[in-house]
Amino acid sequence: MATISAKPVRGTRDILPDEMAVRERLERTISDIYAAHGFTRVETPALENIDLLLGSEGGENLKMLFTVLKRGSKFKPTAESGVTDLCDIGLRYDLTLPLSRFYAGHAETLDMPFKALQIGNVFRAERPQKGRFRSFKQCDIDIIGEPSVSAEIELIHTTAAALLAIGFHDFTVHINDRRLLSDFILSHGFSAEDIGAVCIALDKADKIGADGVKAELTDRGYDEDKVTALVDGVGAVTVDTLESVSHSDAAADLINVINTSKTLAKGRYAVEFDFHLIRGMGYYTGQVFEITLDGVGYSVAGGGRYDNMIGKYAKKSVPAVGFSIGFERIVGLIMDGFIPSDETTRRKVALFYESDADMAEVIAASEKLIADGYHVSLVKAKKKLGKQIGQYENAGYAGMMVFGRDEQVKLFD
Amino acid sequence: MATISAKPVRGTRDILPDEMAVRERLERTISDIYAAHGFTRVETPALENIDLLLGSEGGENLKMLFTVLKRGSKFKPTAESGVTDLCDIGLRYDLTLPLSRFYAGHAETLDMPFKALQIGNVFRAERPQKGRFRSFKQCDIDIIGEPSVSAEIELIHTTAAALLAIGFHDFTVHINDRRLLSDFILSHGFSAEDIGAVCIALDKADKIGADGVKAELTDRGYDEDKVTALVDGVGAVTVDTLESVSHSDAAADLINVINTSKTLAKGRYAVEFDFHLIRGMGYYTGQVFEITLDGVGYSVAGGGRYDNMIGKYAKKSVPAVGFSIGFERIVGLIMDGFIPSDETTRRKVALFYESDADMAEVIAASEKLIADGYHVSLVKAKKKLGKQIGQYENAGYAGMMVFGRDEQVKLFD
Repeated sequence: MATISAKPVRGTRDILPDEMAVRERLERTISDIYAAHGFTRVETPALENIDLLLGSEGGENLKMLFTVLKRGSKFKPTAESGVTDLCDIGLRYDLTLPLSRFYAGHAETLDMPFKALQIGNVFRAERPQKGRFRSFKQCDIDIIGEPSVSAEIELIHTTAAALLAIGFHDFTVHINDRRLLSDFILSHGFSAEDIGAVCIALDKADKIGADGVKAELTDRGYDEDKVTALVDGVGAVTVDTLESVSHSDAAADLINVINTSKTLAKGRYAVEFDFHLIRGMGYYTGQVFEITLDGVGYSVAGGGRYDNMIGKYAKKSVPAVGFSIGFERIVGLIMDGFIPSDETTRRKVALFYESDADMAEVIAASEKLIADGYHVSLVKAKKKLGKQIGQYENAGYAGMMVFGRDEQVKLFD
Repeated sequence: MATISAKPVRGTRDILPDEMAVRERLERTISDIYAAHGFTRVETPALENIDLLLGSEGGENLKMLFTVLKRGSKFKPTAESGVTDLCDIGLRYDLTLPLSRFYAGHAETLDMPFKALQIGNVFRAERPQKGRFRSFKQCDIDIIGEPSVSAEIELIHTTAAALLAIGFHDFTVHINDRRLLSDFILSHGFSAEDIGAVCIALDKADKIGADGVKAELTDRGYDEDKVTALVDGVGAVTVDTLESVSHSDAAADLINVINTSKTLAKGRYAVEFDFHLIRGMGYYTGQVFEITLDGVGYSVAGGGRYDNMIGKYAKKSVPAVGFSIGFERIVGLIMDGFIPSDETTRRKVALFYESDADMAEVIAASEKLIADGYHVSLVKAKKKLGKQIGQYENAGYAGMMVFGRDEQVKLFD
C-alpha cells in the first residue's frame, strides 16, 4: 500500500494535546477578561477578496499572501497570467483589515463606539524558521468610533488586565505618538521623505544603542552633526519635557494617557514614555503602544491608532485604535514554564473494561463520576492490566475502576 | 475617496455579536462535555497538501476544493496549466482526513486508543444558497485504534450527552451497518455494481416513501419483482429479526450497540435500528449513525466507522470511528429559538463618562464592578444623556453610573 506523507504543509504544524489544553485555557481567560471589560466578540471569514488584500497597507505581508485559484469558467491560465489573473480571493494576513471591512459593512447594527474582540488564525507565507509559522492565531481588541484618547486608555488598561490574569507580572507598557516623533525629526532639519528611514534606525536603539543608530544614519549619508543632535535629542526627551518639545494637543493627550495608565497600573506593571517606539505597520496615525516582558526583551502585545483605514471601506472616515496580544508567543512562554500554567483541570479517573464487561454498566458508572466533577477515560483492559494501571497512575490519574471478570476499584494516593 | 467593497467573499459571511455569543457558549458546552468523557482536543492547520486532498475519498467535496497558488519560482503558468500545476496546497474540506494524517504522523506520542475532539473551520466552494456557506465550523469526535464496538457505544453515548447538555430533548439515534445492507441487497439478486445506486434510492425512503423508492429503481431498469422484494424486505427487517437476516458478527455487534445504547438512553432519547441508513461518505466501512430531531426531520449529527483511511498515511492499518455534531445547524436552531439558549451571561453595567471625567477614576470603578462579577461597558456620555441611558436600560443593562459634572448612580429595575 502506497503511503502518503503524514507531514503537515511546509511551515505549518499540528497541535498536540498538551499544547492544545494550554491554548484552550488561554483563549478562555483572554475572552472572559475582555468580555468583562465590555468587548464583544465578532468573527470574519479566513478568506478575503484579493482586491481588498492587495489594496491594503499591509507592507511586507502583501508579499506573503496565500492566494486562492479561481474556479470554473473564471479559471483561464496563460503563460502571462499573474496572481490577480488567476486568483480572486486570498487568506487574511491579519485581523485589522477584515475588522475594518466588517465595521464598514455592519456599522448601522453595531454599538457606537464598537468595542471588538477577535481571536482567529491568520496566514503568511513566511520563510519557515524556528518559532514562526505560516498559520498562527492572533488576538485583537479594537475600539472603533472613538476619536478621544479615552479609547487608548481603555485599551491599554484592558490589555494589561488580560496579561495580569494570564499570570504575567513584570512587564512594561511603552507608549509614544508617531506624529510627535515625526515633527521632532523634521525640526532637526530632516525632510518628510527622510522620516521613514530615520524612524527605522531610531527603532533599533534598544538593540544597537544610540551610537549604533548614529552610525547607521551617517552611513546612509546624513550629516553627522544633524544625526547627533537628533539621536541625542530623542534620547533626552522625557514625559516631563514633552510639552517643551511640542505644544500640540497630541503632546497633551500623550501625557494624559501615560499618567492615567500609570495611575491605573497601581505599581503592578510599569508604564513608560518611549520616544523611540514606532511599531512597523504603515497604517498607524497617532499613538502607538507595545508591552515588553522585563528581562526577556521581546514584546507580548502591540497596537496603536489607525484613524484612516475604515474610511477606505465605509462612506465616511471613522477613528479606530487597536491592541493585539501575542497569542502564540504567550503559548510558547507557558509551554516553556516561563509563567505558571493555571491548570485547574478536573481530576481524571480511568475506567478499565474487560472484554466481558457490560458497556452499559461501565458508562453508567462513568456518568456518575462525571456528575461528581471528574474527567473520565474509558479504557479497554489489556492482558497485563497491572502494568496498564500503573501507566495511568504515573500519568496523574486520581483513581481507577476495573469492570469485568477482574472487578476492582482503586484510588491512587 | 474610492470605496472598496465591504462585502465578505461570495458564499462566506461575517458573524455578528449576538450569534457570536451563542457560538462561543455552544463551543464551550460541547468542549467541556467531550473533555469530561475523556476526549482530548487537537488541531491541524486549515491548509493541507494538495496531493493529500486530491488522493482522498472526498467524493463531491473534491470538486469544491479551494486551492492555493504556488509561490516564488514554483509559480510557472502556461495556457495548459491545470490546478495541480499551479497549486501545491489547498483548504481542508473536512476534519476527518486531517485527523487521519495527524494520527499517522504522531501515533507514537498519543494515547492508544486515541480519543480526539476537533472543532474547526472547513471550506467548500459550494454553490451559494440559503443556510449553506463556503466556510463553516465542524465539530468531530473520533476514537482511533479500537476495533470493537465499544468505540461505537462510547461515541453514540457521548454525542447524545452533548446534545442533552446543549438542550435538545426529543431526538432519535438511527443506527445501521452498511455491510448488512449490502449483503441484503446482494441476496436479492442485485450485483455488487448495483449496490451504490440501490443504496442511494433506499436512503430516500423517509422522504419519498417505499413506493417512491420502488418507482425510482424500476425507472432505472431494475426488474419490478426484484425491486418490490428488496424494498419491502428492507422495510420489514427489525432489530429482532436482524439475526434471521444475517448470522454474521456484524449483525450481533449491531444488536449489541443498539440495545446498549437504548439502555444508556434511559428514555431521554430514542435509539432505533434504521436499515435504510447509508450516510454519504464513501469511506465508511461498517456501522453508520445519524441523529435526527423528532418533528423537524433533519439530522444534527452523523458518523460511522472508517477502518481503511488511516492506513493510507500510516505504516499499518488502524481502525477508527467518528461522530460529527452539526455545529452550524445547531447554532441556527438556537438563533431561531428552537432550543432555549442557556444564556447565563453576567449582568451588564454601563459607566458613562463625560468629557471632564477622570478616566483613572472611571476605570477604577469598573474594576470593582468586574470583580463583583459584572460585565462593564465604558461609554462616553452624549449631550442627550437621558436618552442614551434609556437605550442601555432597554438593551438589558442592570444599572449605570455617570462620571463627570453630572455624577449619578442608578440601578435599573
